[in-house]
Amino acid sequence: VSRAWAVGVDIGGTNVVVGLVRADGGGAVALRSATTASMGGAEGAVEHIATMVDDVISEGLGKVDGRRRDVAGIGIGCPGPLDLEAGLVLDPFNLDWRDFPLRARLGAAVDLPAHLDNDANCATWGEYWQGAGRGVRSLVGVTLGTGIGGGVILDGRLVHGASSTAGEVGHMTIDVEGRPCKCGNRGCLEAYASGPNIAARAREGVERGAVSTLPELAGGDPATITAATVYEAVVHGDEYARDVMEETAKILGAGIANLVNILNPEMVVIVGGVTRAGAYLFDPLRAEVRQRAFPVAERACRIVPGELPDTAGVIGAAGLFLASRQAG
Amino acid sequence: VSRAWAVGVDIGGTNVVVGLVRADGGGAVALRSATTASMGGAEGAVEHIATMVDDVISEGLGKVDGRRRDVAGIGIGCPGPLDLEAGLVLDPFNLDWRDFPLRARLGAAVDLPAHLDNDANCATWGEYWQGAGRGVRSLVGVTLGTGIGGGVILDGRLVHGASSTAGEVGHMTIDVEGRPCKCGNRGCLEAYASGPNIAARAREGVERGAVSTLPELAGGDPATITAATVYEAVVHGDEYARDVMEETAKILGAGIANLVNILNPEMVVIVGGVTRAGAYLFDPLRAEVRQRAFPVAERACRIVPGELPDTAGVIGAAGLFLASRQAG
Repeated sequence: VSRAWAVGVDIGGTNVVVGLVRADGGGAVALRSATTASMGGAEGAVEHIATMVDDVISEGLGKVDGRRRDVAGIGIGCPGPLDLEAGLVLDPFNLDWRDFPLRARLGAAVDLPAHLDNDANCATWGEYWQGAGRGVRSLVGVTLGTGIGGGVILDGRLVHGASSTAGEVGHMTIDVEGRPCKCGNRGCLEAYASGPNIAARAREGVERGAVSTLPELAGGDPATITAATVYEAVVHGDEYARDVMEETAKILGAGIANLVNILNPEMVVIVGGVTRAGAYLFDPLRAEVRQRAFPVAERACRIVPGELPDTAGVIGAAGLFLASRQAG
Repeated sequence: VSRAWAVGVDIGGTNVVVGLVRADGGGAVALRSATTASMGGAEGAVEHIATMVDDVISEGLGKVDGRRRDVAGIGIGCPGPLDLEAGLVLDPFNLDWRDFPLRARLGAAVDLPAHLDNDANCATWGEYWQGAGRGVRSLVGVTLGTGIGGGVILDGRLVHGASSTAGEVGHMTIDVEGRPCKCGNRGCLEAYASGPNIAARAREGVERGAVSTLPELAGGDPATITAATVYEAVVHGDEYARDVMEETAKILGAGIANLVNILNPEMVVIVGGVTRAGAYLFDPLRAEVRQRAFPVAERACRIVPGELPDTAGVIGAAGLFLASRQAG
């Protein structure tokens, strides 16, 4: 594409982030964020997001003295499952939208060509295009948040699969008789290592009598312990919280070793707030992968935190729009 | 390639199979098989296999009145890890060969251009090219035998990964604290569902007092129970053996559900003797995948037995040689 800009929209269960992104790879020049819940249902969200898109275009182009006709289009990242060909949101776990023609509605509302992809695919593509994965050709992204998602890029191409659901690494079974998962199964990676499940595991230990500063950090009520409370306690030297983090790292390590054995990628990028735990997470995680994956595959793979903590999804959504125009 | 034939060599821990394969996809016209152990080490194997190659060429071309110059080359499938670029066998679990330049040695011994790939990749490619996967574009092969291997074909291309070890599905963790595996880890798929481990699980139950015809079928000595004994008992209505098979199916189902969630393929082809258990294996296996995988991904994926039980590896090795010439 010859035009200089694209808009990225990153729709999550908690927040919607919108940004104006440079087509040449120079990051986002304007950003807006709002809570998803504040928007009402899908129809309300379209209206609200359209306003955010207009705002970032005005602000971004104002900064650089650009022209609106140089905005090539809009890329949308949304939790799956999606029907990518038809541009539909089917019935995501974390959103109360169902069989909604998001691509057509949002494209029409902002009068721009639109492209839809899975939110975790967008974050993975963002890291591949402008983040930790620059220069890499094969990469798996793992997004840790309210849920766990992922994206698979092989030889510079995003793998969508036969029905657009490739990359659902969060519901990989790593313990056949393990913790129940909200998806209805047992022992999914997500049942241990999503934000809410890190918090739940920490709370369970506290309720069983673990000695920890977690209840105090959570304002005295263990029920309000979140994953963020756990990271905070880890950084402040709480040994129980470190145990919880280490167990999280080992479980993530088992899941990532599976990805390394199956796909033998050059890189696994981990995206999400949990990466703030830094070496407390990455040291035991890498050790577990070294223990579990084939040595030839493990040595070929760097396991790194994302470099675009707030904007990977937005940049990737815009990037996938641009890539779709080049491919078509 | 314009030439009508290629030789496929399938090297396994137990047997080596060699065949002359039609480049147009018409199967193998001549086959030879020998035990790997009978060949001595790697050097002896090269000599022995070269004779088998000459034999299948003579026999096959004799049948169809063909000319030796119409044999385009030789494809070799061998247990990994391999260095595909250099054509080396590194240090496979199931073979006592180490850092051996198999491609160059065998190519020179038969005076034909040679191509080397992983044995499970070859079997997967055989099923894709001439077996259960004809017409499919994305497919995962799972080979069940002495070990468990696999191959990943996406959009008609075999995924090799960053260091030629992609597709090692057998060492996927499905139970983080599970059975010890010969690879040094715990809870690998292979630790439950390879032939020797199906047999080991059956023996363990018998030793704990399970009521079963297995010891009798094994000639009175439970120590001689093999996976084949288990299939035989299943078919003859032994309830304990059916329990062992059902547990095997569930564990395989969990591993295959992981592949379905991660890659969303059109097909998973299961290759190996265990597929002889038919519905006793496939019914509970498919039910487990339905239970564990994302519905949108599960519905898009057929899970089927291979259609080339004795020749998938040979046909695939020859096919990958031919594909490598077309690509290059």
